[in-house]
Amino acid sequence: MAKSLESSDNVLSILSIGLVVIDIMTEVETYPVEDTKSRSNSIHERVGGNAASNSIVLSLLGEKASFMGVVGTTKHHLELIKDTFSKYGVDYSSMIECAGHAVPQTVCIICKETGSRTCVHYRGSLPELSFSIFTGASLNFSLYKWIHFEGRYDYQDTHLSIQHCRDVKDSKGYDFKISVEIEKASAKLERLLDSPADYIFISKDFSIMMGYADMMQAVAGFSQRVKSGVTVVCPWGSSGAAAQTNGAEAVWTPAFPPKETVNTLGAGDTFIAACIKALCHSSSLSTAVRYACQVAGAKCGLREIDQLSTLQFELE
Amino acid sequence: MAKSLESSDNVLSILSIGLVVIDIMTEVETYPVEDTKSRSNSIHERVGGNAASNSIVLSLLGEKASFMGVVGTTKHHLELIKDTFSKYGVDYSSMIECAGHAVPQTVCIICKETGSRTCVHYRGSLPELSFSIFTGASLNFSLYKWIHFEGRYDYQDTHLSIQHCRDVKDSKGYDFKISVEIEKASAKLERLLDSPADYIFISKDFSIMMGYADMMQAVAGFSQRVKSGVTVVCPWGSSGAAAQTNGAEAVWTPAFPPKETVNTLGAGDTFIAACIKALCHSSSLSTAVRYACQVAGAKCGLREIDQLSTLQFELE
Repeated sequence: MAKSLESSDNVLSILSIGLVVIDIMTEVETYPVEDTKSRSNSIHERVGGNAASNSIVLSLLGEKASFMGVVGTTKHHLELIKDTFSKYGVDYSSMIECAGHAVPQTVCIICKETGSRTCVHYRGSLPELSFSIFTGASLNFSLYKWIHFEGRYDYQDTHLSIQHCRDVKDSKGYDFKISVEIEKASAKLERLLDSPADYIFISKDFSIMMGYADMMQAVAGFSQRVKSGVTVVCPWGSSGAAAQTNGAEAVWTPAFPPKETVNTLGAGDTFIAACIKALCHSSSLSTAVRYACQVAGAKCGLREIDQLSTLQFELE
Repeated sequence: MAKSLESSDNVLSILSIGLVVIDIMTEVETYPVEDTKSRSNSIHERVGGNAASNSIVLSLLGEKASFMGVVGTTKHHLELIKDTFSKYGVDYSSMIECAGHAVPQTVCIICKETGSRTCVHYRGSLPELSFSIFTGASLNFSLYKWIHFEGRYDYQDTHLSIQHCRDVKDSKGYDFKISVEIEKASAKLERLLDSPADYIFISKDFSIMMGYADMMQAVAGFSQRVKSGVTVVCPWGSSGAAAQTNGAEAVWTPAFPPKETVNTLGAGDTFIAACIKALCHSSSLSTAVRYACQVAGAKCGLREIDQLSTLQFELE
């Protein structure tokens, strides 16, 4: 059963808001040549989507995690999503079912030889989580210590929803932090740099699109661009990660690659989840990005994400 | 509901024996470059496998069709297979469920720009239809007018099963015909040329592997190689098809391409089904291959196979 969030339970939760999709993962020895027939080593369906993955990793790291997002009602896919959230103890009581729409699906071809991940995503007709759906859900904000948004192409709705959280927090005196992820290299998402969030996670792809050649340039530039007091965090793959709060010094950490890289899919989602966890535990920004790189690095050495819960990471 | 085959029903059925799998079909504008993320136009699951497709096409062409094969028990996949056979009126009472094994799956990437079909197949642990499973199923041979085998890599089991059918036919005086398809370009399948079948369908890929440059050379060569009285049929894509009975003259037909080709997937299965139907109706070999090319060509102009039943084809 999913953990249910009740007000009598005074452990606060981390809410991740965004996509839940079905990933169809198939592993091949070599990337398939167009117009040929070949064999794969495995195929399986699993739950994906950045926000859903954030929630699962947070739960594996021992946090109380909640997911909010719009989901289609394809029977066996919806069952797989609910079963998966239940298995990991992620609360999905704020997930919104849209009858008559399919769950979006991504075909992921994992190439054993090169380690590449080729993904083809079908979004279908499922509506995005609009501002009106978000406010209509009447979240109980007293339950959360952190609210994280996956920045979507409908950036205006994400922006309005973040502003709404900020307004509720300020007016009611809640203590939760707000963060947003800018992942896609889409110029439209630049608007989310103006978000009234506390933390903005910015991908390497978006940073490069914005003209930054490395993570130190990226955090220096973005931290001047964002609102006062906002912290930008830039994970940069095998280079590590950097972060900087507007008006303060940058911090950075190298990456912590595993002895053998077996699966890099979801490393970005893992980084964000681990960083949020560390910051929830009052770690310094420097400690948080270092911890996040350690957890994301260890994840790349695991075939299954579940194994994360068996590893020990020190939060200094 | 599936048509059930009862002995009181004196319309005989065409039994197709071989694979039933799940095809995960996704259409893209351009073939995905390795290690990138892109969007697809659609994704859906459907029932595939040569023998399963043969059965469905035969039913769409108005024949009483039966399927025999081994199937895994992945819940929603097994449901999709049963629902699909039921929808098309294919009898699957001889389908053998193997608990604890997944249904094999094929990811098919259909490229709109080039018309290419790139397929990655995962077979998993599901056992092949062995000779002992085949005989253990105790088929009621009196129900069939034709028994068609999809030649599998386990050619010995296919060969023994064909021999068993031949023995039953000869000893009991049944009137059914026997055919086998050699599709994969695998040298192992050469042994199936010695099958005691009445008709052997041989793919262009296998023919080319055996050193034949065109369909007329292929039928000339193969018809000398097979047993006396056996007919070989070689569909050759956009060139048409040829056929020849050992000891007789070759016949051939050009292809009948549609005005616009929209989906060539399954054209080979359609050709075989249509050819069997025509031969069941006592068409000459020449008429049968011509009819098969007409139906397979028309199929390539249809987005959905279901539309086949709305078209009219004349069996001269």
